Amino acid sequence: MKIRHATEADRDAIWEIFREVVAAGETYALDPNISRADALAYWFAAGTHTYIAQGDAAGDGVAVPGKRTASPAIIRARQILGTYILRPNQSGGGSHVANAGFMVSANARGQGIGRAMARHCLSEARRLGFRAMQFNYVISTNTAAIRLWRDLDFEIVSTLRDAFHHPEKGYVDVYVMYRSLLGRRFRCGRRSRRTS
Amino acid sequence: MKIRHATEADRDAIWEIFREVVAAGETYALDPNISRADALAYWFAAGTHTYIAQGDAAGDGVAVPGKRTASPAIIRARQILGTYILRPNQSGGGSHVANAGFMVSANARGQGIGRAMARHCLSEARRLGFRAMQFNYVISTNTAAIRLWRDLDFEIVSTLRDAFHHPEKGYVDVYVMYRSLLGRRFRCGRRSRRTS
Repeated sequence: MKIRHATEADRDAIWEIFREVVAAGETYALDPNISRADALAYWFAAGTHTYIAQGDAAGDGVAVPGKRTASPAIIRARQILGTYILRPNQSGGGSHVANAGFMVSANARGQGIGRAMARHCLSEARRLGFRAMQFNYVISTNTAAIRLWRDLDFEIVSTLRDAFHHPEKGYVDVYVMYRSLLGRRFRCGRRSRRTS
Repeated sequence: MKIRHATEADRDAIWEIFREVVAAGETYALDPNISRADALAYWFAAGTHTYIAQGDAAGDGVAVPGKRTASPAIIRARQILGTYILRPNQSGGGSHVANAGFMVSANARGQGIGRAMARHCLSEARRLGFRAMQFNYVISTNTAAIRLWRDLDFEIVSTLRDAFHHPEKGYVDVYVMYRSLLGRRFRCGRRSRRTS
């Protein structure tokens, strides 16, 4: 798997992933019926860096149990396993704090793609000179994401009571998570274990 | 003073206020050199409710020490003393939480215009069915705003360390502030005094 900047040619594959993630309505506070144009305008906005995680081999994402043999077009689309954006969380005096958003194809979950993109993202954020990273809206039921961000040294700095209406669970809390990118050596997300 | 929905005719006056507030670079994380078009696109975005506070009399804002006699056009512009926006803080499952932003003309500060707009805003938010209100970015040096939000029952739910670069004070903290709009009777911002 490699992670690289997204290009125009990736837009169809990104929209496939975006649509399935947002339609579920469980992890993003976005209109589940958002249009392709609005979704791509958001994901490729001015000032936003857009990346994709791509499978190494032609077969990536094809051998999905219960799926019919994929057409060449679908195989190509499925090679994009995930996508993320990195951008300033605010403008002006707030532009030194990064924000990021991650989406992994449903077919490619549980393979560490989110974690690989997150590490890549932290590295890119440092490279671009950001001093901190903030997630504004981590839905408390999204335990896989929260575990990952904690592993990567993000802290929950805020709990927003009932700020998200989950399609099955009703009103649930939302977290703001934050970490500095300064100071200690950048650890690429490998958590230091305290042995004493 | 009255507070009402903004119209196309208010755009010049709003831009005057917006420009002076943002150019100061102390209270909003926006590009201090934002263009008129971008500023008005932000303040009048789809899904955003835009309001203005307007002086009662023709003389409002005219008798400013040190200013030359205002032309009729400027007098008209100066009658707009402040402006605010009210909108969903997120889309989809997060759209029941409101967000708002307030700007008061430098010539009209210290007259309670921000407080009057804030009370109006809370009332409008309830009327529109919002369940809570969140300020994502209250800069810790903006003590007048913080005092006002506390008076209006907002709590600081998060401190974002060094998230804003103040033009004079360097890196300073930013607060996330939040309040429910449910439950107890809506008090229009008059704080109940505990007498025991």
